[in-house]
Amino acid sequence: MTTIAKGYAALGPTSALQPFTFERRAPREDDVAISIKYCGVCHSDIHQARDEWGGAAFPMVPGHEIAGVVTAVGANVSKFKVGDHVGVGCFVDSCTTCKTRNVDLEQYMPGLIQTYNGLEADGKTATQGGYSDSIVVKEGYVLSIPDNLPLDAAAPLLCAGITLYSPLNHWKAGPGKQVAILGMGGLGHMGVKIAHAMGAEVTVLSQTLSKREDGLRLGADHYYATNDAETFSKLAGTFDLIICTVGASIDWNQYINLLKVDGSMVIVGIPDGAVPPISAFGLVGARRSLSGSMIGSIKETQEMLDFCGKHNIVSDIEIIRIQDINEAFERVVKSDVRYRFVIDMASLAE
Amino acid sequence: MTTIAKGYAALGPTSALQPFTFERRAPREDDVAISIKYCGVCHSDIHQARDEWGGAAFPMVPGHEIAGVVTAVGANVSKFKVGDHVGVGCFVDSCTTCKTRNVDLEQYMPGLIQTYNGLEADGKTATQGGYSDSIVVKEGYVLSIPDNLPLDAAAPLLCAGITLYSPLNHWKAGPGKQVAILGMGGLGHMGVKIAHAMGAEVTVLSQTLSKREDGLRLGADHYYATNDAETFSKLAGTFDLIICTVGASIDWNQYINLLKVDGSMVIVGIPDGAVPPISAFGLVGARRSLSGSMIGSIKETQEMLDFCGKHNIVSDIEIIRIQDINEAFERVVKSDVRYRFVIDMASLAE
Repeated sequence: MTTIAKGYAALGPTSALQPFTFERRAPREDDVAISIKYCGVCHSDIHQARDEWGGAAFPMVPGHEIAGVVTAVGANVSKFKVGDHVGVGCFVDSCTTCKTRNVDLEQYMPGLIQTYNGLEADGKTATQGGYSDSIVVKEGYVLSIPDNLPLDAAAPLLCAGITLYSPLNHWKAGPGKQVAILGMGGLGHMGVKIAHAMGAEVTVLSQTLSKREDGLRLGADHYYATNDAETFSKLAGTFDLIICTVGASIDWNQYINLLKVDGSMVIVGIPDGAVPPISAFGLVGARRSLSGSMIGSIKETQEMLDFCGKHNIVSDIEIIRIQDINEAFERVVKSDVRYRFVIDMASLAE
Repeated sequence: MTTIAKGYAALGPTSALQPFTFERRAPREDDVAISIKYCGVCHSDIHQARDEWGGAAFPMVPGHEIAGVVTAVGANVSKFKVGDHVGVGCFVDSCTTCKTRNVDLEQYMPGLIQTYNGLEADGKTATQGGYSDSIVVKEGYVLSIPDNLPLDAAAPLLCAGITLYSPLNHWKAGPGKQVAILGMGGLGHMGVKIAHAMGAEVTVLSQTLSKREDGLRLGADHYYATNDAETFSKLAGTFDLIICTVGASIDWNQYINLLKVDGSMVIVGIPDGAVPPISAFGLVGARRSLSGSMIGSIKETQEMLDFCGKHNIVSDIEIIRIQDINEAFERVVKSDVRYRFVIDMASLAE
């Protein structure tokens, strides 16, 4: 039996989010039904709700940092039971047949089905996200949230957490490595915590020193302002890895020059405009790389959640009522949040 | 006792190369004196002789694809003896003391001393290159050329060869890997030969199909024209590795989209102008990398020469007299050479 879900949706690219009811499918034999308790507010929710990346489908219930409790499971579900703490991230299904399929890199495969602003495997039903009270997801795309992590602050791990964990893991952040986190926002503050827990020496590169105290508290060893030209001369050739979480169109060349020989700068956010052309000298002269990374696979996301459970890592959050989501969007755009808004879904019942 | 060397030099950025005599130092105890038999003509000789990269020092004797025969060795030299076939590449000394020193990556270290257009370790004496009849080089920077390789066609291995071998080796071209060589010139044709010998499946991406027959003869499995838009749709997501040898300011984004997930595009030539801005989507959406690579270390250059000896790989060359060097420069700029000019230094005596 389908369920009537309550949520908040954008009805068009310029509309404010507003109350919206819609159907969730009855759990199939491999499905997990989840009561959503919390959902993080990701900047990409805003980009998509405002159709800033193109191709948006409305009405759209955003939200892909979902934390909740299992309320029912299909007959073939073996990994979850009613009452379990679970999460859902950026995608709820993926291609299982194409020749390029790589089961541990589903996030990069063409058949990926986004948690919202996408279409189910039937090619017709719109997917709707976590700014809502329930969701039904195939078992293989449901994550287990360690019991020691509070559900509210764990919610942002499902996107912000894995977005930083995956490149830090892939590019081998760890003891002896100099890692810089560029940008100290929702993504960046997770990067500081995770890179520190991995054992790397962590430097925050932020526009100003205004969040320096937070950065050091979260695990950074060093903190530099990028509005100070001296930062770029002082740190030239320093880092093995720079994770760029900045959504603005900054000059990547400046940061590439801060890499050691064989260093990598990894972009994890899509800039909101064209960035200045890359100078080949910065890459060629030190075998450096400019790379990109996008969220992580289901396998790696579970690994990240287990890692965070072990190291007691969650996001620093500000809890909001869903009625305040439009104001929260405005504040996210202004980077006025420390460091992630999380919607308390109990507010939907108000 | 110093030697009076004969060569050809640029006296300024707009002067034609002309006959020039200068001193070579007497061999020190760790030096090897070499009679230069052949020297390849690299596009970077032109860039530097015309001061297109800035900072050029004149008079300048270009040339860093040097092949010759040992005529004398210092008392402490153990690896070479008179009569040996040897080569000298892009650098003749490097930093041995700085904290970032990596003995197997000297080419990226700040203390690198270029074969020409540089200063010796004394900080005063200009280095002069291989468009000349002799050179004296520290033993550690002299390469052994396998006896089965002809000296004339082996000369371009010292720059063009290692410039392609190093990234193909570092990014693991080999059986099961799809490798594209972008550009079918002096660098590119070496890439085809080496990648093929490494066991990779090799595709040439060239502006037109005019050199297709050559490409297939040299070892390419496939050959596509980049002036055909269909190439870009047909080959999307195909390659593990693309080596970009093109000196023109092309749109790298088009080629990044031809990479598989985790693929790398490696720039080995400095474009002659700004390239269009990089789109983050192409990198982020498939964890791709845009990287750079510059020549190779002495250790890797020797490894490359041994590899080429084993696989009988040399450059396809056109032999010229040194009196024709200025015309050759013009033809290199127009890409009118198949595939490398090599100066026969015997012509200096004419």
